[in-house]
Amino acid sequence: MPGAGRASGVRRLRPQSSEEPPALEEDQDLLLAAAYVSDAQYNRNVPFETSPRAIRLYYFYNHWTMQVAIYFFICVDLSLALFEEPALFPLPFLATSIAEVLCLTVFFGRLVHFAKVTPQMVFWKDTKNICIMVTIALTLIDLIIYGSLEAVNIHSVRWSRALRPVFLINFPESRQIRRTFRSIRNTLPDILYVFLLFMFSVLIFSLMALKLFGDRGLRTVEGLPYFTNILEIAFELYVLVTTANSPDVMMPAYNFSWWYSLYFITYIIINTYIFMSVFLAVVYNNYRKHLKNEIRKLVYLKRHKMMEAFNILKVKVGSEFVVMEAQWRRLARTVMPHISSPHLELLLRISDEGQKGYVDKMNFLRLADLLNIQVVTMNIKRHPLEEWMPRVYQSSASLLVQRMVRHRIFVWVYDIIILINAIFIALDEKNPFISYAEWLFLSLYIIEIFLKLYTYEPRAYFGKKQFWNWFDTLIIVAALVATVANTTIQSASKYNSQQVLDIVLILRILRLLRVIVSIQRFRLIVTTLINIGPTILTFGGLILVVYYVFAIIGMEAFHGKVRFFDPNLTTPDALVCGNPALKDSAFARDKYCKNNFNDLASSFIVLMELTVVNQWHILAGGFALVTHQAAKLYFISFHVVVVILIVNIFIAFILEAFFVAYSLEKSEVETAIERKIQELGVGIQEEEMHDGKLVDNMDVKDSGFSGDDGDNKRKALKGLYFRIASKKYRTVDALLQQMFESEIAPEDEGPPLDEILNFSPSDIYPKAPNFENSA
Amino acid sequence: MPGAGRASGVRRLRPQSSEEPPALEEDQDLLLAAAYVSDAQYNRNVPFETSPRAIRLYYFYNHWTMQVAIYFFICVDLSLALFEEPALFPLPFLATSIAEVLCLTVFFGRLVHFAKVTPQMVFWKDTKNICIMVTIALTLIDLIIYGSLEAVNIHSVRWSRALRPVFLINFPESRQIRRTFRSIRNTLPDILYVFLLFMFSVLIFSLMALKLFGDRGLRTVEGLPYFTNILEIAFELYVLVTTANSPDVMMPAYNFSWWYSLYFITYIIINTYIFMSVFLAVVYNNYRKHLKNEIRKLVYLKRHKMMEAFNILKVKVGSEFVVMEAQWRRLARTVMPHISSPHLELLLRISDEGQKGYVDKMNFLRLADLLNIQVVTMNIKRHPLEEWMPRVYQSSASLLVQRMVRHRIFVWVYDIIILINAIFIALDEKNPFISYAEWLFLSLYIIEIFLKLYTYEPRAYFGKKQFWNWFDTLIIVAALVATVANTTIQSASKYNSQQVLDIVLILRILRLLRVIVSIQRFRLIVTTLINIGPTILTFGGLILVVYYVFAIIGMEAFHGKVRFFDPNLTTPDALVCGNPALKDSAFARDKYCKNNFNDLASSFIVLMELTVVNQWHILAGGFALVTHQAAKLYFISFHVVVVILIVNIFIAFILEAFFVAYSLEKSEVETAIERKIQELGVGIQEEEMHDGKLVDNMDVKDSGFSGDDGDNKRKALKGLYFRIASKKYRTVDALLQQMFESEIAPEDEGPPLDEILNFSPSDIYPKAPNFENSA
Repeated sequence: MPGAGRASGVRRLRPQSSEEPPALEEDQDLLLAAAYVSDAQYNRNVPFETSPRAIRLYYFYNHWTMQVAIYFFICVDLSLALFEEPALFPLPFLATSIAEVLCLTVFFGRLVHFAKVTPQMVFWKDTKNICIMVTIALTLIDLIIYGSLEAVNIHSVRWSRALRPVFLINFPESRQIRRTFRSIRNTLPDILYVFLLFMFSVLIFSLMALKLFGDRGLRTVEGLPYFTNILEIAFELYVLVTTANSPDVMMPAYNFSWWYSLYFITYIIINTYIFMSVFLAVVYNNYRKHLKNEIRKLVYLKRHKMMEAFNILKVKVGSEFVVMEAQWRRLARTVMPHISSPHLELLLRISDEGQKGYVDKMNFLRLADLLNIQVVTMNIKRHPLEEWMPRVYQSSASLLVQRMVRHRIFVWVYDIIILINAIFIALDEKNPFISYAEWLFLSLYIIEIFLKLYTYEPRAYFGKKQFWNWFDTLIIVAALVATVANTTIQSASKYNSQQVLDIVLILRILRLLRVIVSIQRFRLIVTTLINIGPTILTFGGLILVVYYVFAIIGMEAFHGKVRFFDPNLTTPDALVCGNPALKDSAFARDKYCKNNFNDLASSFIVLMELTVVNQWHILAGGFALVTHQAAKLYFISFHVVVVILIVNIFIAFILEAFFVAYSLEKSEVETAIERKIQELGVGIQEEEMHDGKLVDNMDVKDSGFSGDDGDNKRKALKGLYFRIASKKYRTVDALLQQMFESEIAPEDEGPPLDEILNFSPSDIYPKAPNFENSA
Repeated sequence: MPGAGRASGVRRLRPQSSEEPPALEEDQDLLLAAAYVSDAQYNRNVPFETSPRAIRLYYFYNHWTMQVAIYFFICVDLSLALFEEPALFPLPFLATSIAEVLCLTVFFGRLVHFAKVTPQMVFWKDTKNICIMVTIALTLIDLIIYGSLEAVNIHSVRWSRALRPVFLINFPESRQIRRTFRSIRNTLPDILYVFLLFMFSVLIFSLMALKLFGDRGLRTVEGLPYFTNILEIAFELYVLVTTANSPDVMMPAYNFSWWYSLYFITYIIINTYIFMSVFLAVVYNNYRKHLKNEIRKLVYLKRHKMMEAFNILKVKVGSEFVVMEAQWRRLARTVMPHISSPHLELLLRISDEGQKGYVDKMNFLRLADLLNIQVVTMNIKRHPLEEWMPRVYQSSASLLVQRMVRHRIFVWVYDIIILINAIFIALDEKNPFISYAEWLFLSLYIIEIFLKLYTYEPRAYFGKKQFWNWFDTLIIVAALVATVANTTIQSASKYNSQQVLDIVLILRILRLLRVIVSIQRFRLIVTTLINIGPTILTFGGLILVVYYVFAIIGMEAFHGKVRFFDPNLTTPDALVCGNPALKDSAFARDKYCKNNFNDLASSFIVLMELTVVNQWHILAGGFALVTHQAAKLYFISFHVVVVILIVNIFIAFILEAFFVAYSLEKSEVETAIERKIQELGVGIQEEEMHDGKLVDNMDVKDSGFSGDDGDNKRKALKGLYFRIASKKYRTVDALLQQMFESEIAPEDEGPPLDEILNFSPSDIYPKAPNFENSA
């Protein structure tokens, strides 16, 4: 697409690379500008060199194949723990070490690539890169030591495995996880003092307990001495904070005298209720503060990058600097090669409101946001059946069917069918009548889907954002396939395949979820939850990192100490989980033998149980018995890190997400696009907002396709329709960005780059507390 | 104080009572205005009649003796449950019923009093009054029925006892508790849908569990069938949401196959983590919304009342309406009879800035706030010893002592002494050397207090707000008394009194808390917690109400079903808590016999354990065994009400209090007072604010008394000094009011009364979400 060129009399501003021929130079300018725009669009903040070679390398660096490859190798590296001793699927050390070296090579290659892209100074100043290099070196050293010791049959510890998550955190692609870690790190000083005070309070209460109960000669339910050792008391009281041993820990004293319960009640009010709430408050407050600061940084950096891009492409027309239309078009095409022509045209019409042939600065700065808004382009056609056999499809019988399917009662009838189905599921399926009923229900559901496909345009029904339609169909088809498979297997071999049957059962029950769709308020809550889903994945990453590190440490410390036997076995060995130290312990009595660190999967499940907190002291006690009392420190530190820090951040995040969702508004850019779409008459019903809450517009859209109201105006633009898929914009981050953007003036160029990078949370906080934000 | 009178040419606005003589009429005007101001000051919102008789009755109604009396009788009424069957201290039915009738009479009298004060229309429209009347009637009916049945030896149920908290809630004095209840009621519709969806999810998972595990023939640790009954599964899964039976409920399935753990992990993520966070988010969001609305209402009502007062007293001077100085003085004296003359003078100087002889409208409206700010007036004198024997006190040895005590090292030395003391406490006090050391420490502490009293002015040291000094001294004196008492008893009778010894031990350990004072960050956290203390008491009231109702129901349903035997007894009866139904149950095995509903105190402790949640299913299971499976509904509903609603509101409140404390600023009125105090040169160091956080100013104040810097200017006003005791203003409510006030313009007269009373939260929310308040 060789451009209509640049207006004459242009004043260029970039002196560099002036010895190259103009066309090539222009191309490179465009590439550089497109890199800036693309970075702004995806909020990438990698400082890169502006030489033509570096830019080309930078494009390659950001290519999706490279990103997928790096994530693939990170996965491989992390999953090596499945195959290494203690392994779920054992592989020889040689195999896993070769795989690991391969991964390390890839990581190193990626780092070298990055070093070529970014200025030397920046590269060596960035702790991320140093971290990765150090980790690679340490891993290699560990591999060599372990390998050589193994060769002479000395078993040592593969300690570098705990460092593997460093790669997941420190590659520039994991911005979100890194941000959460940064937020935790920033919270630490504040939380430390509260934690110390909390520990002080626990110690004071421990001393009191020792003095009050130590000499009473009381015994626990198990007949052990009660509260006689200060360290044990401190542990028991720490467990009481997590409520895991309430009320057992109180019972001996309470049985002795009514008054001693006051001691425990005071303890619980102070330490469990007040201190734990204070932890949440401190974590939440810091989370908010730092989130805002990061968002502010992101917004200013985005603007900064768009300004850079503008400065590269600007030409002077009259008294103002602008970007010519052709140049703008080439830029957009370079940033998003797959953009459809009508979509590009739409964006251009928004950016060049007066059709003056150029885009001014204000509109140019919006480009990244414009590109970010997914505009769904679609070709509304009539129903395929209507095209193939219009007479049949438009016959009165067919129209009756269509009206019936669209009717509210149709939905109700199927809701009732689902409820009856639920009752049948709850009944015993051994009865042959009931297992036939299953086939009946399945066919009813399939008929429903066919009827809907008959009535609604299939491509619209399976539109990109029609989550519930997809859900419905997939569940039914899967159930159909599984049921058929199960029946075939059953009749063929008289053998009931357990896995297939389980899947059939689960699918059958998941179908009941469809009831949610019919109830507006339910759909609303679920939609909100689904919208915050992507960000919950960040926590998935965070949890994975912490779990992985703790799992590796746990496997090194505890593997093989506790063994699992078949639950029906009653040999003495099986009763104590294969370890005599566990005799008479609560761990063995509760049959927790399978809660062990003998492989990665088991470790993760134990850690999950520890996250849920209940009975964690039994697990801690068990592993302390088979090793050493100090092992309890491992479990306490896990509790502090995961429950006090990470779970609180998770709660803070959910709270924040809900509050933001409650005060939702459309962004300025979205509004501009929508206005233009409406002006051009190419809009499908836009999503509506009722009293500040998220409203899923599925029904609205469904009827949108069925309406036969005069849509002559619409078809003006070649039968093409646009709709903003604005759900993408409903993540907390995006909403916060949008809110902050609406507060800074469009002509505000922001502070200089250095200042942006050094923003601190106290700059924006608390300034002027006002009634709305403080309560 | 007969006034300088009213300026001539005054245009009076109140036509009523014009037949009375002018002086009396003026007095009554003043009383009415003072009633308005007093209501504004204490945020009372009782509409009262303006006839002279009604005003006098209203004064009587608001008198503190009446308030204390009514609370006393409410306490008596509530504590009757201690003496009624099942009683902690049994009293005959006749005695308790006479006491109850007495209480009811008092309540009725109070209501009649209120009816005389308030307009008839308002009285009968107010549900509070109707509620009280209905409750009184129902209680009387219940008493009569129960009494007559008792007379013929038929035992029936005293159901009206569960209604007693109505009195606590519905008397106008319990505004805070009522507000929290209102907030809960308003949250219900929103939370209901989330709860239904949550229950739906639990049911779906129950169905899945039935299908997946029901036919496997698995057994729990106790050997019972695993997941075979849909109702039991639903209960177990509900318990899993509270995490109380994790991981036990998972173990049989997990032991059977690794894959089934995924079912439980999914369940926990969805129902425990996500749904419970959503509950918190919904509760918190509603709490914020309604809190803001209530505060807005309060602020407008306050202004409205002040306007009324102004309209009564205003006279026209020049072109504006004002209140004459003498009138203003009389008003302030009527509202606060015990105000000191210098304090009044100070307030007048603030209100009549230009000393023009009258107070304008703007300044008049501030009167309620001015009166609300506790200004501590004090007479700074030299140390008494300095007055009695100046030569000795100023001698070089004495000055050395004083300098020593004031030195930082003095504090450190005593911190080290406390730590050594802690070690001694942890050691065994059977050793005679150590028990002598106790006397040493005690005398060291007493010497410290004497040294401090020698150095600092005693009245300043024991100032009203010197919490830590009071704490120190009380603990030491109490420890001294208790230790002496203990030693006397011990030496006199060779018998160690258990109670006294316990108290000695606790006091000895509480002394260690003094370390907190030395660490600035600790003091800060504790001060914040103490500041939000008063509002936590509101939750105490709320919890009391809910606990009381549940305790009464629980006592009626479960009393006597479970009995407590001496823990050392091993008769078969004692092992099953006196109820054969409990044989082999977890309840009996864990020795929970004392967790019963046999009297009010035991019931409260059981409810406390249920609030802590852990093992609640064991308790529920036990009481279901001795009565009926439906008893579990009692425990589930307690969990829903207390843990899902009230504890979440508690957490929301703590979060909010911390956030408000973080964004704290001084109110405009406080600043005005402080400025005036400074201008007049009668200020003692004001409390300082560092980077938006609360800073306890104890050290600052201490040194304030010791400074001998030129305070000639200060002594200008007869040796009197003022200081704002601004801590009183640091409750969340007050802060929110202050924030809201700073947002409405002083000349804004607010909407009319009707509109204020019908404010709804959606009016202020979300209007314009902005970056600061939404994240």
